[in-house]
Parts: sequence; C-alpha cells; structure tokens
Amino acid sequence: MTTSESTGSAKPAPKDPWDLPDVSSLVVGVLGGTGDQGRGLARRLAEAGQKVIIGSRAADRARTAAEELGNGVEGADNAECARRSDVVIVAVPWDGHAATLEAVREELSGKLVVDCVNPLGFDKKGAYALKPEEGSAAEQAAALLPDSRVTAAFHHLSAVLLLDPDIEKIETDVLVLGEVRADCELVQALASRIPGMRGVFGGRLRNAHQVESLVANLISVNRRYKAHAGVRLTDI
Amino acid sequence: MTTSESTGSAKPAPKDPWDLPDVSSLVVGVLGGTGDQGRGLARRLAEAGQKVIIGSRAADRARTAAEELGNGVEGADNAECARRSDVVIVAVPWDGHAATLEAVREELSGKLVVDCVNPLGFDKKGAYALKPEEGSAAEQAAALLPDSRVTAAFHHLSAVLLLDPDIEKIETDVLVLGEVRADCELVQALASRIPGMRGVFGGRLRNAHQVESLVANLISVNRRYKAHAGVRLTDI
Repeated sequence: MTTSESTGSAKPAPKDPWDLPDVSSLVVGVLGGTGDQGRGLARRLAEAGQKVIIGSRAADRARTAAEELGNGVEGADNAECARRSDVVIVAVPWDGHAATLEAVREELSGKLVVDCVNPLGFDKKGAYALKPEEGSAAEQAAALLPDSRVTAAFHHLSAVLLLDPDIEKIETDVLVLGEVRADCELVQALASRIPGMRGVFGGRLRNAHQVESLVANLISVNRRYKAHAGVRLTDI
Repeated sequence: MTTSESTGSAKPAPKDPWDLPDVSSLVVGVLGGTGDQGRGLARRLAEAGQKVIIGSRAADRARTAAEELGNGVEGADNAECARRSDVVIVAVPWDGHAATLEAVREELSGKLVVDCVNPLGFDKKGAYALKPEEGSAAEQAAALLPDSRVTAAFHHLSAVLLLDPDIEKIETDVLVLGEVRADCELVQALASRIPGMRGVFGGRLRNAHQVESLVANLISVNRRYKAHAGVRLTDI
C-alpha cells in the first residue's frame, strides 16, 4: 500500500472538462430577443428543448416575435424576462448595451448572465474592433452587474444560419469565458445542446475583447469566401 | 445576345479566393529562426520543399539550428537572412520585435514581411493580451517598415506540434491579414503548402490585434483540455 492513490495525500484526478452539468430544466432569457442574433439563439435553444423567454423594451414586440418562433418561446419586457429566467443571454446592439443592463440590474441580481455582444465599428473599409473602456462588452457587463454571475459566449454565430429553417446542424464551437468554472460549465452545456455546437472554455473575462472583436475578421472572411464562417478549435 | 455576359459592360466574375499563386520558387527567411516557433515553421516549410534561411543575431547559432533542421535549411545573421529572402517571417519574441525590425529595415525594403508575433503578458492567472501603441505587432511592423509589404499570419500554430517529428499533418487554418490582396495570397499559398494547413484571408491589419491576442485564449484552452489547440474556420 505505497501507491499515492492509497495515502490520501495525492491530488484528486483532474475533472473531465467535457463532463458538463444537466441544464435542461433551466429557463433561458434572451435580452434583445427580437433582433436577428437573439431570435436565432432563442430558436435553436427552444428547438433543443430549453424553455426560452425573449425580452424586449416593448413586451408586445417580444410576444409577436415569440409567437413566430413557436416551440414554447414566450415574450416579455426585459425586466420580466430577466426576473423569470435562470440564465440571461444579452444579445442587444453594442450601443444599447450599458443602458439595457443598467435598467434591469435588480432583476439580474444572482442570475447567470451570458454576454454575446460584439463591439464593432463600420466604415467603407469594413468592420473594426471597438475597445470598451472596461476592456470588453463582457467586462462592462461585469462592472455594471456586480451582483450577477457574468460570462461571455455565443459571439461567432451567424444569425443567418441560426434562423435558416433548412439548416439542422451548426458545426461550430462556442467559446465560453468567465471567472467561475461552474458558471462557464453551465453555459458550455447550454451551447452543447444545439446540434453541431460544442461549448468550450475559452479563458477569463480579461481575454474577452479579442473573442468579441474576432467577428470583424469573420466579416472579412464571409465577404471574401461568400460564407457564414464560424470557428472550430482543433486538437480538442 | 442580350445577356449581361455578352454586352462587355458586365463586371468580371469574382476571382476564386482559393486560386492561389505558385510560391515554390520563393526563398523564405525566418527572423528569430532559432526560437521554437521559428524553428517549427522553418522545419515544416522546408519539408514542404521551400528554400528556407533562418536568421538570428548570431550567425553561428542560426547555422547550428539550421544543420539540425536539415532539408536544405541555411542559417545566417538576421541581415543576411533578410537580404537573401523573398518572404521574411518575423518570429521573434514581442519584447525584441521593434529593435529587430529597426536593425534590418534596409534589408527588408521591398520584401514581403509576415509578422507572426503575439504580444502577450503573463501572470499567475495566465496569459493576457498586450496592446501595442500602434494597435498590434503587425501594425508596429508596418509603421517601422514603410518600404516593406507587411502582412500578419501563423499566429495560432503550436510550436510543439510543428516540431514533433511524429506529426505529419497539422489540421488548422492560418489566418492571413494584410492590405494588398496579392501579398496576402502569396502568404496564404505558403501556409497551404504545409500538409493539413489552409491559408485563409482574415482581414486588414487594423484587425490584427484580436488575431494576435487570441493566443491568450488558446493557452487557456490548452490548459483546460490538455491539448495544443488550433483554429479552423467553418463554412469555407
């Protein structure tokens, strides 16, 4: 009995990074759920069996969009969407990001927030990265929502593919960033419910800026190759 | 005879983005060619049939490394490496980047320069992006080398995989950034010579920062998944 396993002093075996929690009972809210990205995500998550509530400033707009999506999707104003959800995806345009989060700060208290906003500027040369004062959209969310658990994910998905009814699988990885492993794993599990997608841990929030702004490069790729490019990581 | 093809006024068909030039006769220099990344790239390009010269501040160090690599690789000091090459890959550490380029500015005049430097900082929480004053390492190179044709590529390759003699194919995409399409296509063609790799256009130099600093995220991925992660783009 001299092996390290028997002494009690050995390190525990590392946790399998692909062993993710069951998230099927969580309610997912989508702020900005009437935009293309928000509706696309809501649609795919609802099709995968998740209970989804889309939020908008105007509850009736959200309800109309929800009816079109079907699969049990509900619509509500942003505050109700946040209050009734366990996980809240933030899919608003960058220029409404801070104001939207400040308006529902109370309702997001204690919630798992998933920021998927890409701060970009556009000119005649195409798209380029904007650098938020806080470092990234996700870090801005973390600064504005000190009582929430903030992560970042779903940056590189094409709204066109998400909304195309003829596409059953979206072969791509979803990089999930955050400070707390258990929170990231919930979001990874959520992403992995959508056929073709894998939720992959992608680092801490301080490394969110480059993930958010890589969308500017994907826009260049799409233009050159007439595609809807996504990202897969190799060797994992 | 009323179709647009026959009128002579129609736009030319868009160029196939996968139709890349023949680069087999170009001499490739690697500044910082004695480091892991530089030796790895030199090795793979030479194995693919490219004439490669690795450069170092000390010519004898470069010659020793070149002999170990075989496949006709030569070693020289940085100035001779730059002078004798058509395409010059810059694979030096970030903290020697500006000084190395300034020292060989004359020799790099007119050359196609490929910057593959990732400006990163490290602390006990891991790696994080450094933001060069010029925006990125590639933009610093462009500012320091006004008479060269500066591109950026080869950021996400694992030196471990590049140097592993048991690995024949490296399944990954190489994002190539630059301002001039013909220059990017030469670099894309060069990357595509290495088995498993595709050279893909990834945008203008102003969008290089996020490509360079994505390596911080890949380091987090590698740690979590015990891997040597690379990037593939989907749908192209």
